[in-house]
Formats: sequence, C-alpha cells, structure tokens
Amino acid sequence: MKSEIIAVGTELLLGQVVNTNATFLSEQLADLGIDVYYQTVVGDNPDRLESLLQLAETRSDLIILCGGLGPTEDDLTKEVTAKHLGEELIQNTEGYKKLLAFFETTKRKMTENNLQQSQIIDGGIALPNRTGLALGTFYQTADHVYLLLPGPPSELKPMFIEQARPLLEQNFPSEEMLISKVLRFYGIGESQLVTELKDLIETQINPTIAPYAKPNEVTLRLTVKTKDKHAGNQALLVLEEKVLARVGEYFYGYGDDNSLPKVVVELLKERNQTITAAESLTAGAFQSALGEISGVSQVFPGGFITYSLETKAEFLHIDDALLKQHGTVSQECAEQMAIQARNLAKTDYAISFTGVAGPDTLEGQPAGTVWIAVATSEGEVISQKYQFTRDRSHIRNSAVMQGFDLIRRQLLRKNKCEYLFGFFLLFVIKNDMISTMKCRTDL
Amino acid sequence: MKSEIIAVGTELLLGQVVNTNATFLSEQLADLGIDVYYQTVVGDNPDRLESLLQLAETRSDLIILCGGLGPTEDDLTKEVTAKHLGEELIQNTEGYKKLLAFFETTKRKMTENNLQQSQIIDGGIALPNRTGLALGTFYQTADHVYLLLPGPPSELKPMFIEQARPLLEQNFPSEEMLISKVLRFYGIGESQLVTELKDLIETQINPTIAPYAKPNEVTLRLTVKTKDKHAGNQALLVLEEKVLARVGEYFYGYGDDNSLPKVVVELLKERNQTITAAESLTAGAFQSALGEISGVSQVFPGGFITYSLETKAEFLHIDDALLKQHGTVSQECAEQMAIQARNLAKTDYAISFTGVAGPDTLEGQPAGTVWIAVATSEGEVISQKYQFTRDRSHIRNSAVMQGFDLIRRQLLRKNKCEYLFGFFLLFVIKNDMISTMKCRTDL
Repeated sequence: MKSEIIAVGTELLLGQVVNTNATFLSEQLADLGIDVYYQTVVGDNPDRLESLLQLAETRSDLIILCGGLGPTEDDLTKEVTAKHLGEELIQNTEGYKKLLAFFETTKRKMTENNLQQSQIIDGGIALPNRTGLALGTFYQTADHVYLLLPGPPSELKPMFIEQARPLLEQNFPSEEMLISKVLRFYGIGESQLVTELKDLIETQINPTIAPYAKPNEVTLRLTVKTKDKHAGNQALLVLEEKVLARVGEYFYGYGDDNSLPKVVVELLKERNQTITAAESLTAGAFQSALGEISGVSQVFPGGFITYSLETKAEFLHIDDALLKQHGTVSQECAEQMAIQARNLAKTDYAISFTGVAGPDTLEGQPAGTVWIAVATSEGEVISQKYQFTRDRSHIRNSAVMQGFDLIRRQLLRKNKCEYLFGFFLLFVIKNDMISTMKCRTDL
Repeated sequence: MKSEIIAVGTELLLGQVVNTNATFLSEQLADLGIDVYYQTVVGDNPDRLESLLQLAETRSDLIILCGGLGPTEDDLTKEVTAKHLGEELIQNTEGYKKLLAFFETTKRKMTENNLQQSQIIDGGIALPNRTGLALGTFYQTADHVYLLLPGPPSELKPMFIEQARPLLEQNFPSEEMLISKVLRFYGIGESQLVTELKDLIETQINPTIAPYAKPNEVTLRLTVKTKDKHAGNQALLVLEEKVLARVGEYFYGYGDDNSLPKVVVELLKERNQTITAAESLTAGAFQSALGEISGVSQVFPGGFITYSLETKAEFLHIDDALLKQHGTVSQECAEQMAIQARNLAKTDYAISFTGVAGPDTLEGQPAGTVWIAVATSEGEVISQKYQFTRDRSHIRNSAVMQGFDLIRRQLLRKNKCEYLFGFFLLFVIKNDMISTMKCRTDL
C-alpha cells in the first residue's frame, strides 16, 4: 500500500512552523507496514491543493491531509477535499455538542465560523478530537482512502493513534510486520562504514540496512519485513553478525534511545565504580552530558571546570611551574588534571580535557588541538592528543564524545582483562602452574 | 519568482528525521521576497526524483534540492539532477583539495566513494562547504535555477547564507526589499505574548509580526516590505516601540544569532567583570553554555560541579552540618554554594544551582524544584526557588536559562543603580544637598 502525506498551511511555507506532523505520521505508517512515497506541503490555496489531490490520486492509495480544519478563513482543507470528492460538508452531532459545551465552560463567545470545526465530509467517518475541537474525517472510495487530520500536533497525534490507526489496521490488515534494530557506532565516519559494508548494502533486499550519520556518530538501522516474528529476528541476528564482524570495533550499543554517555553510566553502575572530570575547553559539557542521565548520582559525585591557568593551579593544586613550562594545552597538564581531579573527588576514574576551542589559536596551537587524559584508581594514566575540525561547537562536542569513548573502552578493557585473568587462574589451578600475568594496556 | 523545496532522503519518509531544512529555507526565501509554493520530500529513488523534477519545472522558477550529496550509494541527488539536465558530473579542484586535506588531518582512510562529494554538475557554480565536505551546486538554465544543497543542517545553513543567498540576491534582485528585525524574549510563553499583542498581530499588514516559540524563549520577527530603506526601518522602529511598551519587561536582545548566554557574556565584558558557578542538578550545563561563546575566557576562569553532598562539602568547604540540617535542595545550600564558589574562584559574581532533576523525588521534594542563588563581590546574595515542569532535560535546561536571566537582570540592575546614583550626585552637587541613597535591590 502506497501513501503520501499532504500538510496544508501557508505558515509552513513561510518557515514559521516545522512540519513535525509529517515525521510523526511517517514513523507511524512505517510501523503499520504502509509505504510513504511523498510528503508535500502546500499553502492555503484552493487551486494548488486541488491539483495536488489530483496528482496524489495518480500515485498513492492512501492520502493523508493534515491542517486546515480550524475555524478561520484560510482553513480550507475540508471544503476543497469535499468538493474534489463531489460531497457536501455536514454537521456532526457529537462534535457540535462538544463545541457548544466548550464555549459554555470557557464562557467565551462562539463565533459563527466555529461551526466549521464540527463538520465532516458526507459519507465519511467522523474522527473525534479528544484534545481540540476540529473533527477529522476518514473517507473511502473504491480506489483511495482519504484521511483528514487537524494541524496542531497535540490534536493530530492522539487522533491518529486513537482513531485513525485502528481504522487503518482494520481496513488494511498488514500480513507482514516490520521489525527493526538500531546499531550505534562511534569513531567511524558514515562513508567509511558504508564502504566496509558496501556489498551487504548493495545486495540488501530483506533485511535492509539504512545508515544514518548524526554529529559524532553513525547508526545503522537493520529492518526486516516478515510474517514470522521468530524468523524475522533470526534474519536480523544473522545480518548483525555479518556487520559486526567487519565494523564491530566501532560498535557501542543498540537502540534509538541510547548514547555513549548512557552506555558509560550503565557500565560504571554495573561495576559499582565512579567517575569525575576536570574540564578546560569543554567547560562542563562532559559532566553535563553525564547529568542528563537519570540515576547518574550513583556514579558521579561532581567535578571541576578549570578554564583558566589559575583555576587549574588552584582548584586542582597543579604546580604552577609545570603549567607555565609545558603550557595548559599539553600532555603534562591533561595528565595532572586527571590525576588531581581523581584524588580530590576520590573516584575510580577521572577524565580531563584541555585544548583549543577556537576560533583563535592558544599557546601557538591551532583550534581543534585537544588533549584528553584518563586516570584510574590503580594509578594508571593514559593520555591522547586529538586534532578536531570545524567550528568551536563541533570541536567541543567532538572532544566530549571522544572522552566518553575513551572511558568506555577503558571500562571494557578492564572487563576483558578480568575475564582473561579469570580464565588464566582457572588454567593455573588446573595445571598446578605458577606464573605471572600482566594485564596489557593495549588489549 | 516562484520556488519550491525538494528534500531527498528515505530517512525523512521513514520519520527518522524532521525536515527542518525546509523550514529554514522557507524562512530565508520569504526574507528574500521569493515565494515558496511547495515543499516536497521524496525518497532515495531515481525515478521518483526524476518525475518530481519534471513536475517542479512546470510550476516553479527556482528549484532547491537538499540532501543526497554525500558519499554513499543512496546519495543520488547530484547524479539524477545532472542526468535530468543533460550534464556530466565533474571534479571541483578546490573541493577535492579540501577532501584530501581533511583525511590527512584526521588521519582517516579516504575511500573511493568520497570523491563523489567534491563533484559538481558541469556548467554550474560550485558552492564550498565550510562545515563539511560535500559541495553544493548553483545551476542556471534559460527558465530555471537549480540549487543543490547538502542535507545536514549544520552544512546546509552556512552554505545557504554564505554562498547561495548572495547568488540569489545578485541574480534576482527584488525591487522591494524585506527588512526584518528579531526581538528575543525570555520569561513569557508564546500564547501569553500573542495575547498581549493580539490587536497588533491581527491588524498587521506591513510590517508583519511573526512569533516563534523555541525551548525556553520566544522570538518575534518584525518584517517590513519596502522600496525605501529609511522608511522601512522607521516603520519597524514604530512597531518595535509598540511591542516593547507592552512586553518590554521580557525582552532581552536582538537578532537570530543571539542568546541569553551571549548577552550575559557581553554585559560582563563591557563591565570587565567575571563569573563562576557551582552546579548541582545542572552538572555543568550553565558553564558549558558559557564555554560555547568565544572569548569567554575573559570573564570566566572556571567553576565547580558539586553533584553529591560530599563534593558540596569538600570542593566548596560548606559546613557538613548545614547541608545535613537544611538538605542540599535548600535556600541555605544554594546560597552557600554561590558564596563559597565566588570566594574560591575570586570572581565578581557566582551563581549556584541545586535541585531535583528527576524523575524521582529528592529529600522529599518533587522533580523540578530548583534553588538558584547569586553572590556578588559586594557581599550581596540573592536566591530564588523555582518549580519547573516536564522531563529531566527540560528541567535542567529551564534552570540554566533562568540562571542566565537572573544574572542578566542583576547586571542591568547594577547599571541602572549606577546611572540613578550618578544622576543623584549631580542633583546633590547642584543643590548643595547632603543625603544618602541606598540602591534598592528590586529596581
């Protein structure tokens, strides 16, 4: 089944309102197994809307119109569509009663034009509006279904979910369901990811692979169309294994509602460990990203923002001479920041950020130069220099995400070490052998 | 001149991404006096894109395509449009150099498909991409102009403003110019703002008033269409005065590229004053917003994130007994945090945030309860309790913005006091009168 979404409203064409309705409806339709081929926005103009309806009938089975059901002059969707279908507009009794009750309760004067709102297209099914006054219509011909929904998202969403969706499911039961799985990657660009998976992507039919680049990460959505849930999940698993065999190094988690900070907080919680930070150029952005995650207080007591040389020296008790000798954008400074922050906050881990946010250079170093260091409770300190690009905002954000990835890898490495060490102990016991093992830091 | 915007990308039709590019471009085109009649979204499908191009040519002079310029298989906008126009794709030397430089700097592997990004349509003008790699194209035929822009908003926006807009202005000079002015408000909701200005908005013809709500602020765009720049500016000024006479209390600044943090940093710079912060529930979000503004190091040396009771006591040397007696979500704690942070950072101002980010209650207080305090170098301390709503993210963000507004008002109040005091001194001198004047804190 092919569908398209037509949003009606000059305010959209003037850029005053974002068309989030199209996004919401598209997501819902994908979920119902209904393909969306076009989203269009047209102004409050009867002729242009009429030509669009004619065009839509040549290419879609389901035509969803949103907006233009209200009481004002320029709300003309219902009128134009009714005329197009050769139908009249009729008053809906329930809708009319609700309209009267609303104006009685709010003690507002009901103007004549409000009667428009409780009209529907004759021959159609009225869709009650739980959160507003304008009724929707579900209208079916031999070849097409028309669905008219109100423009305000707060009215459109409940009306679609509660009224329209059940009608669509009932009239067009989908034999096949869509199951999808989102894999999240950090540290690999979209183009490289796609190159690594080129043959898988080129030969994809079912399941499909859709890459999507976001700032500082790439996601892959694997989607299968299936009649059998178990077989569908199995197909996704097989594909996922193929994908991870090639780019698993960059994979950090599943799901739309996931992020590097979330994964790091979860890992710390699992291990009952804590973290702090000392931030210079990122000025709290790392810690604020931690703070966004509920329950973070279990793993994060607080930290430092040391933007100037003076606060690096005073808040963190770093030797002034060291800062002046090596500069604040240096490995020495980054490492001292992490070591001292960990000592002061008494945490298992500390991370530090120092660098040049730009646009100007600092201490002779170009914008984008960043040192990140991690100190652990075992006395280990790792540090790394990065060169990020683009503008101030992107540089700061890249540094923060790189920091989360460093910590994540550190946490997983520990895990891997412990796992290997456990294995080794078993081996020792089994073989009655004495040996020493040092956990390699580059595992 | 009639135009339409075509966004290309299956991710839009699946509801994974909101089409904010169409909104941005529509706003820009309105500003240029170019009418937008349609916005369309089509998937990564060459046949459907080709039919859409054919349709667009029958109804629009300017056809703007966005998305599909990247390096992957499904980035087909440039290829399909070139074929439609009977042109080849050619490498652009500057773009190619930038591509090579990017992969050299970031030490990432450049794959073959990246070469797509530095290609443009032969015969067109290359539009450099300051914030990314994929070039845009401006291509003109006898009857139409084609403009190809990248999909990521962070690339599309600067490319349109810096590259495409000047070309459009130059090729299609409008007899009438649009002059607009953006007024920014904090502390008033969109519906209240619109209600206060109801008659002005309803009778608007030229200039027009367009309200736009963003998280935690509302903007009003006043726009005049005029042949005479001076008269246009005068009309805007008259309207602005009317607006500010009613809602000036909430007005904080002008311009699209402005924000409360920016205004605060500018005010501090003007006064040669400095600020620090101690953040609990906001966990660095206030200081990170400061850090986003270039040149902030002049006014911000650093600060504290004290998420736990322990770090409040240890980092800020707050009496443990006070914290335990009053709780951390209290006026006493907020005030001590601000006082101690200011002492430690040796700044003119300190601001503190403590509260319940949610979703759970804390110390018996509901999510959204927030105390904010400001301490000044004159020993003054003000504090205020707020009850914010919605989710964790909104609560934290609301607290940060409220904090910036508190500081802004404090800075302006000082100014007002000094001004009044100067006036008073003149008066004293003039009248040979002795008196004392205390600066009221509620001016």
